[in-house]
Amino acid sequence: MAQGNDMTDMKLYHLPGACSRVTLTALEQCGADYTDEIVLLMRGAQHSPQYRAINPKGKIPCLIVDGQALAENAAILSFLNMEYPAAALFPQPGDALEAARQTADLFALSASFHPSVRAMMMPVRWTTGNPEEVREKGRQLVHPLLQQLETRLATQPWWYGGEWSIIDSYAHWNYTTAQKGQFDLSPYPNIAQHQKRVEAHPAYQRALAREQAAVDAIGGLPDVA
Amino acid sequence: MAQGNDMTDMKLYHLPGACSRVTLTALEQCGADYTDEIVLLMRGAQHSPQYRAINPKGKIPCLIVDGQALAENAAILSFLNMEYPAAALFPQPGDALEAARQTADLFALSASFHPSVRAMMMPVRWTTGNPEEVREKGRQLVHPLLQQLETRLATQPWWYGGEWSIIDSYAHWNYTTAQKGQFDLSPYPNIAQHQKRVEAHPAYQRALAREQAAVDAIGGLPDVA
Repeated sequence: MAQGNDMTDMKLYHLPGACSRVTLTALEQCGADYTDEIVLLMRGAQHSPQYRAINPKGKIPCLIVDGQALAENAAILSFLNMEYPAAALFPQPGDALEAARQTADLFALSASFHPSVRAMMMPVRWTTGNPEEVREKGRQLVHPLLQQLETRLATQPWWYGGEWSIIDSYAHWNYTTAQKGQFDLSPYPNIAQHQKRVEAHPAYQRALAREQAAVDAIGGLPDVA
Repeated sequence: MAQGNDMTDMKLYHLPGACSRVTLTALEQCGADYTDEIVLLMRGAQHSPQYRAINPKGKIPCLIVDGQALAENAAILSFLNMEYPAAALFPQPGDALEAARQTADLFALSASFHPSVRAMMMPVRWTTGNPEEVREKGRQLVHPLLQQLETRLATQPWWYGGEWSIIDSYAHWNYTTAQKGQFDLSPYPNIAQHQKRVEAHPAYQRALAREQAAVDAIGGLPDVA
């Protein structure tokens, strides 16, 4: 596996606004050369035989690297971090423990924060019954996670201190997605400032432009319904 | 960070039968020197000020390494894999993509399989209402995950082929925990064979013995009320 421009073939399967926006942001931060294709989750396209042949798990994001599929957002971020060290997706760890603590942050976001946000946004994912009871539980679970982030951001502008990392984008995706689910972020002023910083970051701006180009290429996204 | 016996101070916070059993199995496979302490989740001990001072997230497992806390089961496994390469917790990857796919397997187990099993075993975790509706959804989510595992094990004894890895232990913990939640594993004969292999592995046996010693040291576990 070669670095940077020597890596000849990468393709991202994604959906604008989904957590694949974090993957896109990472690819843009790396200056990677890649193609992309939208998977219309609202049409169930992730379960089509065509997509299952690409990613048997039927999930996005999925990055195809030289013909091989790599699933799981956080694993793709780890991979890009190894392949493009100059992009500084994560701060350079001082030792194995510090590296593992960065990995732990990724796991916390993908295995705790993200499922809790999902309980709010897609409560039917967790119940055969009344989704509102799951949505309410999701709100209860998200509050302490945001409080931890609010405390962390009280003394520093970014998750790891003075510099942006892809973890900032992942956290941002989680709390802005919660916000779309009518979650009130106003008790968290440090997070509000963090949101402005993340959205002003060049890689985020380029990821949004790339999403828009993908939407334009298919003539717009269908309505959710 | 030094390797093996030079690492002087490790302590695991855990609960017998919880997913920390996978962490214990990894420590035993590494031949690591460590102390341990039970956190009585059934008594809410993870939320005590004493434990919050150790792990602010109030979760187990948590590994203290030279005074610093490392949370998230999968991150601890990644860390031990780096520190004890001779233990072969994972097969040696051929390139960065293969390494990333191992990481993706860890993320899939911790961010998809584990939360689905939790929906079955602790449905109140996902709802303010009727837990049975969440439990039923958990069962529905676990079936396709087990089917993928069943297919994988049709042609090879272990997750990665011919050799045990810690992923086998993590998968085992997930499906046996589902089984404790009255999930019927009988449609999965390959998984039944895998279960026997995992439970015969020396590191698993030593982890069980270590759990029992920890239970004995506190005079037994309290009943779940």
